[in-house]
Parts: sequence; structure tokens; C-alpha cells
Amino acid sequence: MSAVSINADRLLSRIHALGEVGRDGDGRLTRLAGSDADKAGRDQLVRWLREADLEIAVDRIGNIFGVWREAGNAEKAPVLIGSHIDTVIDAGIYDGCYGVLSGLEAIQTLREAGAALGRPIAIAAFTNEEGVRYAPDMMGSLVYAGGLSLDEALATVGTDGSILGEELRRIGYAGADGPGFSKPHAYVELHVEQGPVLEREGVPIGAVENLQGISWQRITIEGVANHAGTTPMSMRRDAGYAAARVIGFLHDRATASNTPTVATVGCIAFEPNAINVIPARATFTVDLRDPDAERLKAEEAALAAYLQDLATAENMTISTERLARFEPVTFDARIVGIIEEAARGRGLASKRMTSGAGHDAQMIARIAPAAMIFVPSVGGISHNPREYTADTDLVAGANVLLDVIQRLAAEGKIR
Amino acid sequence: MSAVSINADRLLSRIHALGEVGRDGDGRLTRLAGSDADKAGRDQLVRWLREADLEIAVDRIGNIFGVWREAGNAEKAPVLIGSHIDTVIDAGIYDGCYGVLSGLEAIQTLREAGAALGRPIAIAAFTNEEGVRYAPDMMGSLVYAGGLSLDEALATVGTDGSILGEELRRIGYAGADGPGFSKPHAYVELHVEQGPVLEREGVPIGAVENLQGISWQRITIEGVANHAGTTPMSMRRDAGYAAARVIGFLHDRATASNTPTVATVGCIAFEPNAINVIPARATFTVDLRDPDAERLKAEEAALAAYLQDLATAENMTISTERLARFEPVTFDARIVGIIEEAARGRGLASKRMTSGAGHDAQMIARIAPAAMIFVPSVGGISHNPREYTADTDLVAGANVLLDVIQRLAAEGKIR
Repeated sequence: MSAVSINADRLLSRIHALGEVGRDGDGRLTRLAGSDADKAGRDQLVRWLREADLEIAVDRIGNIFGVWREAGNAEKAPVLIGSHIDTVIDAGIYDGCYGVLSGLEAIQTLREAGAALGRPIAIAAFTNEEGVRYAPDMMGSLVYAGGLSLDEALATVGTDGSILGEELRRIGYAGADGPGFSKPHAYVELHVEQGPVLEREGVPIGAVENLQGISWQRITIEGVANHAGTTPMSMRRDAGYAAARVIGFLHDRATASNTPTVATVGCIAFEPNAINVIPARATFTVDLRDPDAERLKAEEAALAAYLQDLATAENMTISTERLARFEPVTFDARIVGIIEEAARGRGLASKRMTSGAGHDAQMIARIAPAAMIFVPSVGGISHNPREYTADTDLVAGANVLLDVIQRLAAEGKIR
Repeated sequence: MSAVSINADRLLSRIHALGEVGRDGDGRLTRLAGSDADKAGRDQLVRWLREADLEIAVDRIGNIFGVWREAGNAEKAPVLIGSHIDTVIDAGIYDGCYGVLSGLEAIQTLREAGAALGRPIAIAAFTNEEGVRYAPDMMGSLVYAGGLSLDEALATVGTDGSILGEELRRIGYAGADGPGFSKPHAYVELHVEQGPVLEREGVPIGAVENLQGISWQRITIEGVANHAGTTPMSMRRDAGYAAARVIGFLHDRATASNTPTVATVGCIAFEPNAINVIPARATFTVDLRDPDAERLKAEEAALAAYLQDLATAENMTISTERLARFEPVTFDARIVGIIEEAARGRGLASKRMTSGAGHDAQMIARIAPAAMIFVPSVGGISHNPREYTADTDLVAGANVLLDVIQRLAAEGKIR
């Protein structure tokens, strides 16, 4: 295997240049899917793909591909690298873009080095990963993997009343192909961790072996509103107190479990929400995540049992509404092993880990062996302008990606 | 003492008639202080005071008095009965009005029965007890008792930008006297309990011996916002969880105390309040009440100590802001005894109890021996159109009031 390394300056300057595309008057970076800012970002990406002399394709859901294939390997299934360049509102510059631009950089480096590979390599920028303007998130990769029909996706109405298909046409990214026109041999996604683990442990490379399943629920507890002064404690049916009990239960159980289970209550509201009235109703959300499907189910069941006991003990009505449910994803063990080897080959420590966030890789894993590489996020901060990864870590991650795809693309030859 | 009883039909029909004054198009009863609806209610009361041939006075803060004095007792300090006829928004018909109209009924009954009393008896309807449009509440009685300057009260700007003094002039209830022109010999207030105790215990008469002190605080807990999926439980600083711990602490401590202490968290907000973000900030209110001044202080201190420990244990910043603080009020034991005797004399069970809500009586208690009589509130419901007290209980309470004031007004003669 070649000892070639990526062009660090080129990668970093592209990350920063793309990070300037789509800033508003206040300097906030926002490139929502299908927007003018998204178009500007896509146009910039396409210019770089052309510079690298890649074959460019846009599919009907707007996913952009840059493909390097040679006469000798053109019929083989490609190694696909992917991520996204759409952003949340007031975003950082790394989420998604780092993976796309590193993929481009890796391909360009291999090509410039005159590497001869057994398979084509392609870089994909998937449409609407963030899902801020159009739901669901990870839409482009989901459609690509056949998990959502193209027509349904294109008809999606945005938070601003726009229709995704019309917006893609308007900005010039409603392509003619596929999607899914090219079933990959393997898929690799490089991403900032968006969590604190790698930084905290001083490990530069995460070999992501699975991705948490997600269970989102909204819980409503109905008690009885009463005067905060005239109602003795023993005569209360305080929905706010019951909600506090549930929050404590979830947090303490997950903390004590010694498993990767995480539980979060992020939203809450009391009614009538008056200082001197005992809450009649408490509504709150529960975000439960676990990389193990059985354990996620067990956690949901434990919550349900707790709610049932609480409703009886406190004489309240408790109802739950499912908001979202995704099964955990297990990535391809062989690719995870290749990532670990590649890190070792670069003298970098690595750590098998779980992705706590959703990524396009979980969709592509439905149709191809897939895995992810993480690099540290300072403070675990993401979806925020303070999102930051040190240049050394960015470059290290891109070099590991380079080695991994070179290895995967060689497979066509050696088999 | 005479066996005379109040005219039940007259009292009940007046309560229902006043309850129709100030209903909006949707049938909601609202007579905010100084409003046109308040004027209509006041006008109706004044017509009834005239019918009863009482001497009418309005002081400068708009408190209305109906006084029965005779040549033989005119120089003596009167026995004062009081409450209010302003309401909250979408009110029931009993809160305040029951006390004022029962006072009128008791006086009218005694007068019609030809009773000769040692002291004048007066009924007062105090301005702006509810405090919905103008803060603070219990304003008319507070000014009467010298706890707030007349000028300051009249300059109060309402939630709608109006000025109380101008509104009182506009509706014709800016009087010329006092306030406080007449220092009472004793003060008695009859009121619906607005809590569940009497109904739950099947006791028709509450002899109110004290009134809870109130401590209102706003607590802000600052943690760190982080991704709900990527942040392990051990690395979280979850402000929402910390808030839940405080809510549990307050509720469980008050419940276990076997004292009249009550603790309520009625308002809460998380920031950023997103389903997949660990709360960076939780803000909530604490309403602590206790009829014992030392115990209320001890409860506040226990909360402060808990917050300090929690801030250390969870590595968070916790700040508290005092929103209101009223010392408990102890009513006049002699009058409480007279209330119990009067109930016994009518064959009614009574119970010494604490008022959990604020009342004009707590203000007048600063300048005169005072106590309150409670009657049951069905379901403890008040400040709500479903507020209800059975007619039997209304009549019983008014007869106890009659006997109490007759006894108090006789004191001038027997001393």
C-alpha cells in the first residue's frame, strides 16, 4: 500500500471556503436543503469535483456524486464515500462538509499519486441530511437506499411551505439518474464525533461499529390543578411532581446501567404554568438511545412499567405518544477492522465506538457494507458555530479515510 | 343572644344576581378592579346597601363601606365585616362576594330584628383584592391598614397601561374619606375556603386561626447543552434533571413533614427545549407556604442548602431570585374562640384551620383583632367558574357570621 498522504492545506482551505458559503448578514452559517445557500454550496462543491477531474452525476433527489473510474475498473461496483453539505441553522463548518471534502481530497490525492485501483471510488453529498427544512432527516441517503420513495420525498412540504422537488429544480439540482443508480461495493463516512468521548479520552480516531437506535416519545401526565396554598400535600395530584419523578427515573436508571444507554428529557411544559397553581398537566419528551436493539426495547418497557406504577400510585392519567423510532444499526465488522488497521498504520490510537447521532451511513448500511470514522469534537459541541475540530485531527482522519478506501478499492483486484 | 337568623333567600338571590354582573359575550364572569364591570358590581352593591338603609362611605382608594350606627353607639369603634367584590378573569361567583353580601345580610337582619348593639357594624368591600389588573393584590385593605401609601396605590399602572387612580375617578369610586378613617374594634371575614379540607372532612365551618406565610422564588439552574445522543450519561450536566431533583426534594420533604407546610413548583421552562438537546438551563418557580414563621424560614433554608449541595454535586450554577415574601399572620384567638362558640350554638361542627390563600383579613389584622370564617368549597376549586359552595353551607356560614358580629358588637355594652 502506498505511503501517500492527503494535501492538508488543500483540504483545510476547502473546509474554510465552504464554511463561508451561505452566511447571513449576522455572519450565521445556514445552508438549508434546497435553499439559495444550498445551491451556492453545491455549486462550489461541483467546481472542486470538476477541478479534480471527477465524473459528476446528480440523481433525482439531488444527491451529488463525483466518480473516479478508469477503463480498467469502470464495470466494478464503486467504493462510496459520503456525507452531506446541507447545514442546520447557525451551524458550524465541519458537520457533514468535513466528510465530503475529505472524500474528495482522498480521491484527488490517490489520483494525483497515480494509484491504480481495482474499483471506482465515488464521493457523495447527500441531499437534506439535517432535515431542518424538510422532514425526515437523512432523506437523500434514505431515498438512495430505497427506504423512501422518490415521489414521496420530492413532494415533501417544508417548514416554509416550499416543496422539495420544486426547490431542487429551481436551484438546478434535480438530476436525471437513479437514485441508487450505483450500488456501492462498500461505504465509508468520515465525520466529526459531535460528542465528547474522543476528546475526553485523548483518542484521535473513532472506529464506529454501530449507531444507536432512537426512541422518541411524548409523555402527558394529567393531574388536577389546585391552589398552591389551600391544598394540603396529601390531597394533591401534582402532574409536575409526577413528571419530575419520571425525569429522575430515566436519568438515574441510564446512569446506573453501565451500558451505552442514554436518556434525555429535553422539552417540558406545565399547564396552567402559574406560580400558585398545582400543575394539572405536564407534557415532556423522552429521547432514549441504545446501540443494542434488545436493550432499547427493554428500556422502553422499563419506562412503560414505571409510568403505569406511577399513574396508579399518584392517581393520574399518563399517556404516551411515539414521535420517532429507529432501530440500532450495526456497521460492517470487516470495514471497522480496516479502519482500526489504517489508524494503526498511521501511528494513531483508535477506539471502537457507537454513533450517538444519525448519519447517512445508517441508510446506506441497508444496501452495502458500511462503517464510519470519527474524529474528536472539542467539547462535544456540534450544531453550533462553536463546533471545532483541531486541524491535526482533521488531517489525521482524512488520511485514515484515504487508507481505508484505497484498501477497499483494491479488493476488486486481489479477489 | 337573639335566635334571629339571616334571610337565606335574600342572601342567595343577591349572590346569584351579583354573579351575573360583568359577564362577557362568552358568559365568563370578570370584574377586574376599576373596570366598567367593577363599576357595575359596585353600583349594584351600593343599591343594596341603600335598600338596607346603611350609611355609605367610599374612601380614596375606592373601598366601599356600608355602616349601621345608631345615636347610642355612633362614637364607638365599629365591628367591621369585609371582603371584596372584584374578581379574577373567568371567575366563580363566591370568592369575596359571599363575604360582602353575607356581611350586608347579617347587618340587615340584625337591624330588621330591632337588635340594639353596643357598637356600630360596618361592611367593607375592599378595592382590588385579586390584584389581576393592578399589583399588589389585597391593595384596598393594605392601604386601609397603612401598609401602602395612598399616592403610591393610586399611581399603580395596570397590566393594560391604565392607572388605578384615574380608573377609580372614571368609574365614580374615588371617594373623599380616609382610607383608615375608622379604626375597627374587631374585624371578621367570611369566605369560601378555596381548598378541599372542609369538604373532605365533612365540617361546615372553619374557624381560621392563622394564615400562611408565603415565600415565592424563581430558581435558575445552568448546566450545559449537549447532544442527547452523543453525550454519555457520565459526561452530562443536565439542568433539567437537576430541576427534577429539586421538585422531588420539595414535594417529598413537605409531604413527609406532617406539618401544614406546602411546596409547589407551578412554572417551569427548559432551554433550548429541544427533544434531542440536553437542557442547558432550567427555570422554575417555588411557592413555599407555612403558617409558622420559623418553620417557613427553616423550609427556605433547607431548600437553599439542598440547592448548594446539588450545584456542587452536579457541577452547575444555581441562582435564586425572591419574587414575594409575606410573613404568616396569626389571627385573634379570642375571635377564633367566638367563631367556634357560634358554630356550636348553631349545632354546626367547626375546625380550627389555616388559610392557604391571602385575604383582606391579613391586612386588617395589622390594625385590629381579626379572624376569618370559612365554609366548604366543593372540590377545593376556586378562581374558576366551577367554584361552588352548597346553599346550606352558605347560609350556615352567614348565620355564624351574624352571631359572631352580634357578640362582638355587644362588647361595647357589656364592658
